[in-house]
Amino acid sequence: MTQMQLLMDRIRRDGQVKEGNILKVDSFLNHQIDVGLLEEIGKEFHRQFADRNVTKILTIEASGIAIACIAALFFHCPVVFAKKSKTLNIAGDVYSSKVESFTHKTTSEVVVSKQFLNSSDKILIIDDFLANGKAIMGLADLVHQAGAEVVGAGVVIEKGFQDGGKKIREMGIDLHSLAIVESMDPSTGIQFRKED
Amino acid sequence: MTQMQLLMDRIRRDGQVKEGNILKVDSFLNHQIDVGLLEEIGKEFHRQFADRNVTKILTIEASGIAIACIAALFFHCPVVFAKKSKTLNIAGDVYSSKVESFTHKTTSEVVVSKQFLNSSDKILIIDDFLANGKAIMGLADLVHQAGAEVVGAGVVIEKGFQDGGKKIREMGIDLHSLAIVESMDPSTGIQFRKED
Repeated sequence: MTQMQLLMDRIRRDGQVKEGNILKVDSFLNHQIDVGLLEEIGKEFHRQFADRNVTKILTIEASGIAIACIAALFFHCPVVFAKKSKTLNIAGDVYSSKVESFTHKTTSEVVVSKQFLNSSDKILIIDDFLANGKAIMGLADLVHQAGAEVVGAGVVIEKGFQDGGKKIREMGIDLHSLAIVESMDPSTGIQFRKED
Repeated sequence: MTQMQLLMDRIRRDGQVKEGNILKVDSFLNHQIDVGLLEEIGKEFHRQFADRNVTKILTIEASGIAIACIAALFFHCPVVFAKKSKTLNIAGDVYSSKVESFTHKTTSEVVVSKQFLNSSDKILIIDDFLANGKAIMGLADLVHQAGAEVVGAGVVIEKGFQDGGKKIREMGIDLHSLAIVESMDPSTGIQFRKED
């Protein structure tokens, strides 16, 4: 596993550590979006997962969408994004799973129309953050409900001091995180995981 | 104004007209996303607005994000997406406007952190659908609160039989819609606006 230096430099420069283990990357990743950085992130995910015959990238609204779509340009495959609640515009026939958000302290139902996940699909899951791992577990659950295969998971920022990454890897999912924050503190800043 | 033939063909082929003036384009635009089509859409918006010195693209979560981000690759500018409700992760200092959704029959507050809209910004607004125009009016309101300029608005599908497009154009916003549905019906299908 190799982390991405350009991304770690950007997190150090523009990320803000807030009380409650919140890392704000609003200025380039999930409110304002630096699409040039996302191109580099997409290339990196493609380098990692190019040989997996990915048929679709699955992510979750809202902040996963940008990352997944720009990555998909390199994989030449469609993106499917799970929606956080049933809306008038989703047909009744959905796969559904429950996800707790660490950041927002809420539980929501994530749904995908059954027509967009098929048993022959080889799915790459992509998301912006990995903390307790619940979002990726929920997405993997949707894939498994469809009888499809999770061929990997790509995460931009893993909070290495929470147990989500460990759990996902123990599930046998090939997880690649581009930056792993080992510790962070409003006063002392951000330390990334040391590579072996 | 020129509509985009590739897009109109795709809407005719894969769009589903439902009762209540709902046009479902879930299979390529706002649940499953054809990123190759979005590249063509992004190029088209760039052809239309290349001379406006766009500094940022503004859109609204969730389904606008994919379109805005891939378009931004051609403009070489950041995307800012307005969020539909205040969350723990947004600082208190936001511009805020109310938006009614035609599709979801709800009113939500859309917010953008003040730090991401500046008075010197030339903003291109991008969204997937234009029906009653409330989303684009809300986004334009955020831009004006910041003292910035709306240099154009790009919409993928305009429902020409609703009054949003007319209202937006009467506000003096240079609106470019890539497909304008003049009428649609579950039994007789979709008719696009005839070009002059």
